[in-house]
Amino acid sequence: MESVRTTPEGATTIKTKEVKAFGTSAADAPLNQLNIHRRKPKPHDVEIDILYCGVCHSDLHTARNEWHGTVYPCVPGHEIVGRVVNVGEHVKKFKVGDLAAVGCMVDSCRECDYCKEDLEQYCEEGNTGTYNSPDKYLGTQTYGGYSESIVVTEAFVLRVPENLDLAATAPLLCAGITTYSPLKHWNVGPGKKVGIVGIGGLGHMGVKIAKAMGAEVIVFTTSLSKVEDARRLGADDVVLSKDEEQMGRYAGKLNFILDAVSAQHDINAYLSLLRVDGTLALVGAPEHPLPVAAFSLIPYRRSFAGSMIGGIAETQEMLDFCGKHNIVADIEMINIQQINEAYERLLKGDVKYRFVIDMASLKR
Amino acid sequence: MESVRTTPEGATTIKTKEVKAFGTSAADAPLNQLNIHRRKPKPHDVEIDILYCGVCHSDLHTARNEWHGTVYPCVPGHEIVGRVVNVGEHVKKFKVGDLAAVGCMVDSCRECDYCKEDLEQYCEEGNTGTYNSPDKYLGTQTYGGYSESIVVTEAFVLRVPENLDLAATAPLLCAGITTYSPLKHWNVGPGKKVGIVGIGGLGHMGVKIAKAMGAEVIVFTTSLSKVEDARRLGADDVVLSKDEEQMGRYAGKLNFILDAVSAQHDINAYLSLLRVDGTLALVGAPEHPLPVAAFSLIPYRRSFAGSMIGGIAETQEMLDFCGKHNIVADIEMINIQQINEAYERLLKGDVKYRFVIDMASLKR
Repeated sequence: MESVRTTPEGATTIKTKEVKAFGTSAADAPLNQLNIHRRKPKPHDVEIDILYCGVCHSDLHTARNEWHGTVYPCVPGHEIVGRVVNVGEHVKKFKVGDLAAVGCMVDSCRECDYCKEDLEQYCEEGNTGTYNSPDKYLGTQTYGGYSESIVVTEAFVLRVPENLDLAATAPLLCAGITTYSPLKHWNVGPGKKVGIVGIGGLGHMGVKIAKAMGAEVIVFTTSLSKVEDARRLGADDVVLSKDEEQMGRYAGKLNFILDAVSAQHDINAYLSLLRVDGTLALVGAPEHPLPVAAFSLIPYRRSFAGSMIGGIAETQEMLDFCGKHNIVADIEMINIQQINEAYERLLKGDVKYRFVIDMASLKR
Repeated sequence: MESVRTTPEGATTIKTKEVKAFGTSAADAPLNQLNIHRRKPKPHDVEIDILYCGVCHSDLHTARNEWHGTVYPCVPGHEIVGRVVNVGEHVKKFKVGDLAAVGCMVDSCRECDYCKEDLEQYCEEGNTGTYNSPDKYLGTQTYGGYSESIVVTEAFVLRVPENLDLAATAPLLCAGITTYSPLKHWNVGPGKKVGIVGIGGLGHMGVKIAKAMGAEVIVFTTSLSKVEDARRLGADDVVLSKDEEQMGRYAGKLNFILDAVSAQHDINAYLSLLRVDGTLALVGAPEHPLPVAAFSLIPYRRSFAGSMIGGIAETQEMLDFCGKHNIVADIEMINIQQINEAYERLLKGDVKYRFVIDMASLKR
């Protein structure tokens, strides 16, 4: 179904198409099927038939308004892979039939210092999130990948390596870039000892990527049950973080730590493992502030940092890197109708290590 | 008075000289005059007649055992300037009559990775502090600059620019290098906006040095009474940190923040002022852990770091830089007999901005 809508400015009209999606109309309501509008491709737009969409914890936080600011209806999903079905007349990178991917952003101001430095994730105007951001064209909020198709300006569409399992590629668009970007930024590579804290959607990607970058990888986990799995993912060593003797073996020894834990945890215990000039970068987001002792940082000039996804150019670089090293996520495939159940399991950490929705299930 | 002492290993004996000093024999006792032993210069040693010694808050913390681990008697002082009165036969950099300085360290292992990288302050074995560290030669603890003279291995003795006021140069050896090192490490210079938090012994040096490095310097203070003084020290702007509107003007604007506050304070309010990839480096050491929100770090890839003094080569570089830019500390001169009173005033922040002891007063 097609229709014509007035833009936010009210000056021009824009053609849209109605598509099926899965979303929610309230913080406490389950997700169910609904219809949304996608704009008809403009000259620089790419229309993608969505084949798979990963399930990120942010989807759940947003659907349930846990970060506040959710506008309903809300259609989550920002780990999107699919096939190009339509392109605007000025599109150069894609043609109909190509594989394509969309991550956490669908636009940014493209004019500020950060956008010009390929750091669109930190756009001074705020980037346009793939879901729950103001839609520049339609006046609604943006709708994510739990849908049949999506229309995105070419500059924010990624190419997908042909050699990777497509479903397992979807999580690279958030979990992959969220871990690749800090590992790259803090120069992880051969000769470096790198700690990965927490083995979940993010952490398991961190292990694979850090290992492929050539680093020695030490996994820190609270869970005895994940020791073998961490080794299978590529870890050179696994430390049970509750065991002080095991932790002590790495005191002052690590160049970098990627901390993917969203629960409250003792940051000082991990900071003490860093060498001089080492950095611990947080990519999980614990709800409450983490107490940091001055003497965890001062004696070895250590840094406690954070990092958020990556820029578009870097996301492409990550996808190409994963193609080259044959890296994808460990996934469990679900149908869209199982999404509410998947959210409950996600809350319990009961997934190894990412749910991916087979979007064909939405079309049935 | 000279004597012969057995070394820690008991294998050889070492000649010593008794000199006057000022120190304390217990955490709750005032400092008063006492005698200590200095070794007679060995082939690589420099003997320095101490002319001035700055008073650092660490002196007070150690004298009163506030950081625990103080061995008594304790003779503080690690901002030492004086004149060379004796040199060992292998000494090359100094001759009798030269000005010389000693800072927070008098030795390190000189073999670990950090020592080889001129980062003796982070020596893996632990550097030998100028006071209250095990003395490798005498088997006692080391005694600091509140004394007539000191004997230090040449590698840890600094040259002093001849053009600077000597008394006001003393605080450069701790307060100067503690601020210079992070400003240099985090690339402060022309085109950079730098915040200095807290105007005291450290902060006032930070303002002068950052300004001389060519940065735009914004001072943050809780004290209306320090606004004019901050401008006199070189600040381009001064922000009352309790005023949210004033703070808001710098949200996301600063490249680097040097935080010289030892009291508890809201780190998140300062982290929010940093640009993408900005760092806040702590050089003051609040007693209790500081709560840091994940979202203070993640959205702009910010870092919360710490830094401790500087290496020997960098300390020399700092002294040369201060000579070139005619930078010294703002000081209030005292006699050694006023040290207990000075400590009480230090606790109240009642000094602009560093006490320096005229060590001639010890000889009278």
